[in-house]
Amino acid sequence: MITQVLIGILSGAAILTAGILIGHYGISQSSSGAPPSWLKDVAKDVDESLIEKFLSEVDNIQIQENLRELTKVPHMATTAGDEQTVQFMLKRWQDPETGLDQAWREEYMVYLSFPDPKNPNKVTVVSPSDTVLHTAREKEKSYTPDQDDPEVVQPYAAYSPAGHAKGKLVYANQGKPSDYQLLNQTIDLRGTVAITRYGGAGRAAKAINAAPYGVLGVLVYTDPLDINDGLMSDIDETYPHSWYLPPSGVERGSFNTHYGDLLTPYLAAKEETYRIPAENITGIPNIPIQPVGFEDAYTLICDVKLDIFNHEEVKNSSNVMGVIRGSVEPDRYVIYGNHRDSWVHGAIDPSSGTSVMLELTRVLGSLVQQGKWRPRRSMIFGSWGAEEFGLIGSAEYTEQYFAKLSERTVAYVNVDIAVFANATLRASGMPSVQNILFAAAKQVDAPGLDSTSVYDNWVRYANRTSPALGIIPRVGYLSGAGSDYAAFVHYLGITSMDISYTYDRTKTNARIYPAYHTAYDTFDYASRFIDPGFVSHQAIARTAGNVLIRLADSLVLPLNCSDYAEILEDYLGTAMTLYEHQLRARNISMEPLKRAVASFRSAAAHLDRVIRTSDLANETPLKVRRINDQLMLLDRAFLDPLAFPNKHAYRHVIWASSDAGKPTFPGLADAFATAESSGQSRHWDKVHYHLSVLSQAIEGAAHTLVDVI
Amino acid sequence: MITQVLIGILSGAAILTAGILIGHYGISQSSSGAPPSWLKDVAKDVDESLIEKFLSEVDNIQIQENLRELTKVPHMATTAGDEQTVQFMLKRWQDPETGLDQAWREEYMVYLSFPDPKNPNKVTVVSPSDTVLHTAREKEKSYTPDQDDPEVVQPYAAYSPAGHAKGKLVYANQGKPSDYQLLNQTIDLRGTVAITRYGGAGRAAKAINAAPYGVLGVLVYTDPLDINDGLMSDIDETYPHSWYLPPSGVERGSFNTHYGDLLTPYLAAKEETYRIPAENITGIPNIPIQPVGFEDAYTLICDVKLDIFNHEEVKNSSNVMGVIRGSVEPDRYVIYGNHRDSWVHGAIDPSSGTSVMLELTRVLGSLVQQGKWRPRRSMIFGSWGAEEFGLIGSAEYTEQYFAKLSERTVAYVNVDIAVFANATLRASGMPSVQNILFAAAKQVDAPGLDSTSVYDNWVRYANRTSPALGIIPRVGYLSGAGSDYAAFVHYLGITSMDISYTYDRTKTNARIYPAYHTAYDTFDYASRFIDPGFVSHQAIARTAGNVLIRLADSLVLPLNCSDYAEILEDYLGTAMTLYEHQLRARNISMEPLKRAVASFRSAAAHLDRVIRTSDLANETPLKVRRINDQLMLLDRAFLDPLAFPNKHAYRHVIWASSDAGKPTFPGLADAFATAESSGQSRHWDKVHYHLSVLSQAIEGAAHTLVDVI
Repeated sequence: MITQVLIGILSGAAILTAGILIGHYGISQSSSGAPPSWLKDVAKDVDESLIEKFLSEVDNIQIQENLRELTKVPHMATTAGDEQTVQFMLKRWQDPETGLDQAWREEYMVYLSFPDPKNPNKVTVVSPSDTVLHTAREKEKSYTPDQDDPEVVQPYAAYSPAGHAKGKLVYANQGKPSDYQLLNQTIDLRGTVAITRYGGAGRAAKAINAAPYGVLGVLVYTDPLDINDGLMSDIDETYPHSWYLPPSGVERGSFNTHYGDLLTPYLAAKEETYRIPAENITGIPNIPIQPVGFEDAYTLICDVKLDIFNHEEVKNSSNVMGVIRGSVEPDRYVIYGNHRDSWVHGAIDPSSGTSVMLELTRVLGSLVQQGKWRPRRSMIFGSWGAEEFGLIGSAEYTEQYFAKLSERTVAYVNVDIAVFANATLRASGMPSVQNILFAAAKQVDAPGLDSTSVYDNWVRYANRTSPALGIIPRVGYLSGAGSDYAAFVHYLGITSMDISYTYDRTKTNARIYPAYHTAYDTFDYASRFIDPGFVSHQAIARTAGNVLIRLADSLVLPLNCSDYAEILEDYLGTAMTLYEHQLRARNISMEPLKRAVASFRSAAAHLDRVIRTSDLANETPLKVRRINDQLMLLDRAFLDPLAFPNKHAYRHVIWASSDAGKPTFPGLADAFATAESSGQSRHWDKVHYHLSVLSQAIEGAAHTLVDVI
Repeated sequence: MITQVLIGILSGAAILTAGILIGHYGISQSSSGAPPSWLKDVAKDVDESLIEKFLSEVDNIQIQENLRELTKVPHMATTAGDEQTVQFMLKRWQDPETGLDQAWREEYMVYLSFPDPKNPNKVTVVSPSDTVLHTAREKEKSYTPDQDDPEVVQPYAAYSPAGHAKGKLVYANQGKPSDYQLLNQTIDLRGTVAITRYGGAGRAAKAINAAPYGVLGVLVYTDPLDINDGLMSDIDETYPHSWYLPPSGVERGSFNTHYGDLLTPYLAAKEETYRIPAENITGIPNIPIQPVGFEDAYTLICDVKLDIFNHEEVKNSSNVMGVIRGSVEPDRYVIYGNHRDSWVHGAIDPSSGTSVMLELTRVLGSLVQQGKWRPRRSMIFGSWGAEEFGLIGSAEYTEQYFAKLSERTVAYVNVDIAVFANATLRASGMPSVQNILFAAAKQVDAPGLDSTSVYDNWVRYANRTSPALGIIPRVGYLSGAGSDYAAFVHYLGITSMDISYTYDRTKTNARIYPAYHTAYDTFDYASRFIDPGFVSHQAIARTAGNVLIRLADSLVLPLNCSDYAEILEDYLGTAMTLYEHQLRARNISMEPLKRAVASFRSAAAHLDRVIRTSDLANETPLKVRRINDQLMLLDRAFLDPLAFPNKHAYRHVIWASSDAGKPTFPGLADAFATAESSGQSRHWDKVHYHLSVLSQAIEGAAHTLVDVI
């Protein structure tokens, strides 16, 4: 009986088990369908343990060795040294163990300007009878073997026309329009040579502003007060004794107002692309200009002669591109980039950033090659060429792939100069990236500080009070064209950010790190004075990499539109204070702008609420995608290709560059400044026009954030 | 024993059943997760039985009654009659049983031009001493009570300036530049009044072309040879005896070159929007112009006097909008539209299209309201205002919602004049819609023909030989701004089509249906001469509705990029034949364009292969979405806002309007024509520039079709 019962129980159990198995595998596979294998993947969110792993593997010594390799020789755009770095990047990104899925180069034929090595530019002091009394240095003084490299380019102003100028020297401060205007009230500027200091105005502007007054040539130097906290002696004060600029150091640079290749505006500079005649280029100097060291600047008196032998050439410049394919949404791109070309050895500018990028791709590439990880979205890495001549490589890239990049890019992360100095994080970007920067910075230790995060350190150095969040670190704006983010922000309207480590402003007033664009920006300089131990580099690699992984892996894009609304409200408040009274007197209403910002705020709050109250991991992936598209495309809605007809490739109505210098909407601020100074009714019409452009763009952006139908 | 065995079997079965139930419902819900409920929805494809249901429910008598209601009174834009149609549309679209999910009106303040009812425009023949010898009719002759309606607007040329002109009458053919040029060789045109016939040049152009020769005023009439197959007598030949235009019939129209509100280019015309000064408007006549009937045209001799009292007004114009929310991808829009405003009763233009739209929304709305169906994607219906004055309602809508519509619109379907005549389908659109038009047309019976489909009938009337498909119906191109598709095609780059029923060209040479824009375009005219029984209307409703449902419900968007490649190759072939020889002689290479078209072809073939070889119903919905985004955004890649600086809101480099009249790329054709006629090198540079613009756009489009990373 017991046996029978046992058999009964056992067979019952067996039958039950069979039934369970049939029910589970048999029926669920046939009738209602098994959950498909991709179901988990599409719902997966960012993996915090992966981020921890990434952070722990970022190695400061690897960064140091990257930098050592990258700075072996000068690598000015399109030179043999540049090609060497192209090969190095390709080798690293194609490495089967630590490389990316794929890497390749893309070439453009771009218009560059160089001095003539056989006929160097000359700056001389001459007597009235043309006897040479003093000749300015042709090369910077040598302190380490780096400066003796024959490939060190003579200091020059790229895109200065060749030519000869002789005249009485006049000091024109920073070469701003107001500087020349003021000077012209007391001195007849016709036939003079102006000497200006760096800062205050764009490089090209110093010459462009001078020409209408009859100035024949311009010199530009770096003032010790602006760069060296006043120190001047290379006996014990300047490099190699400190980070300060030696007396003979000269900042090179591109003297070019626009960005991208100058001969092919809005077109990728391929071999057969139409090129405008060089004489139609705007925004470059129309009189000779040359940079000099402060040593020479201080010896120049009376009659000064400039003999400039620059020449222009169309040369082949390469971007090096690398990708990690996304697993779930390969058609969504997170782009990370930095330029590769320098003026001389470029240890800080740009190789600090390139060293960081290489370390970051090494860690991510290894995870991919080992099969341990693949991002949800695709990652694209760009090592841009010819940035120093005007952000050319990145601009041409965006021109060539305009549609594809506009449609699919989630965000662009730029790390150019990774470390200016080792005090604190500095980050700029669209307001929607604030939150992801904060999240990343909280997870990274501040270099050289025990148990303080990059975030906690940052908020001490630069903060603001947010109406919603209280005291938070201050994130800057990308309203200019200071690095390769320009085309992404201004031409494509892609949400972007720029990340670096920077100064303690209580310790220096240097306009920028003193060796900037000089022959002293070397590995020695970087490793001794900028970031000994490369721990700030490491902190940047960790922070930027963390941002990158979150952008690529988060189920819902970590972009916050309410933070955007806060900044629009701030801009609106400033605009109301500055302009409303005068505009009302001219019957121009600011109400549409007020309404637009209010619409945006309420639309942003609505979308936030949808995100907060949805169980997105369990809903259709198309709902997540819909919300992500709203977030991704937000900045695209602010583009207006007709808003700034006189600014090349500026289309973003919130972040375009502005001359008015007011912390508010750029087109409105500039139009108002023009109208106020001219008083002409057609200029007041322009203000009204810009208000309409702006209101429509902000309303248009708000329409993209509300319920989709 | 048997009992025991039975009990054993039964209990075994019960246990097995319990197991199955546990296995199926218990385990699958807890451990591995049940297939989520949305899984079927996201994989669902178009339902052919739904299409059959739709086709069978489209009712010709309903269309007839819609038309009767819509044409009760004249409904020129912004008049009381227009408001009556707004109310009618809203009532229908808000009907709880047959309406849409939601319907509302959107208003714009737009710049219109009207005659003065108290001071009608006058055309008179005067003696040298100013005695009036003949006065042209102020109103058309009345044959039915419709023409007696006091709201019938006097025939006039909208946007003609008010003014008085007197001069010797000269016949200037169609008022093309060449017509005036030729005439000026034998006659001194200064001080004359020109009479021109409709056709050959845009309405406004007839006056704009004349002014430089000193012509003081222009008349325009409809020649019986162009519209009536030569018939002229209202005793037995013209309406009400036939569809032909009575002698006193006058075509009204907007004499305006651009489209959209003239005072607010690129900005939605809201109350506080900035308006350009009216004197800055371009593209409208600068001398008075007035249309007359051929009856009057033939009596005008010697000295003719024009007294034009038109005035401009900013008036409130409404679009009526309605939506059906999408179930799976609500953020994808299929837009269907037609204008609502007419010049007089507008039975054919536009109410034939509006009647069709209302029938189509009645059938779809009923299915939605009964809970029987909801489209995968959202459907948006637009009843546009003020089209007759320059496509204003649709253009303002696209300006206001630019970002949202650009990002999300799958396609725009336009049915304006639904039935010109009852012989055959006529369809125009981007090449990618060819296939869906064919699919839809094959499922609809041709009106009045037994067992012949609309497709089979169509291919007899208008066909071409496709390299890939053999003999197929010819789909036209949307290269002008003939109806409300213009802003969608040219400004937003949205894949669009325009559908109607039209003539047997062996039976008439009429330029357009003869009552076009006259007081005779009435319900009586439509129901007796255009489409007795409304069966062609029904065929259009079925065809367009079928297209609409397929666009909204197909899993993979039914847009074909290889068909696009075929037309680009055709354009390229023409361009090579016409231009290559001369361009090579000027060192301008067409190779980049050839390469671009080849890239596009291979990218299109690749995407087609991906679609063909994927099991998309079982893969992640994000893969389907990715492919659909590639298809949806294809036309966006052809936009270049800087390619046509002199053409308002033309940005699509393949379909922009062209003056050269060559079946090839419009910017290239126009630039070539200019260069060839001027011979200036700067004009040849423009040709090279346009080649680069075009090659980059086509390459850019190809980049969007290849593997996404």
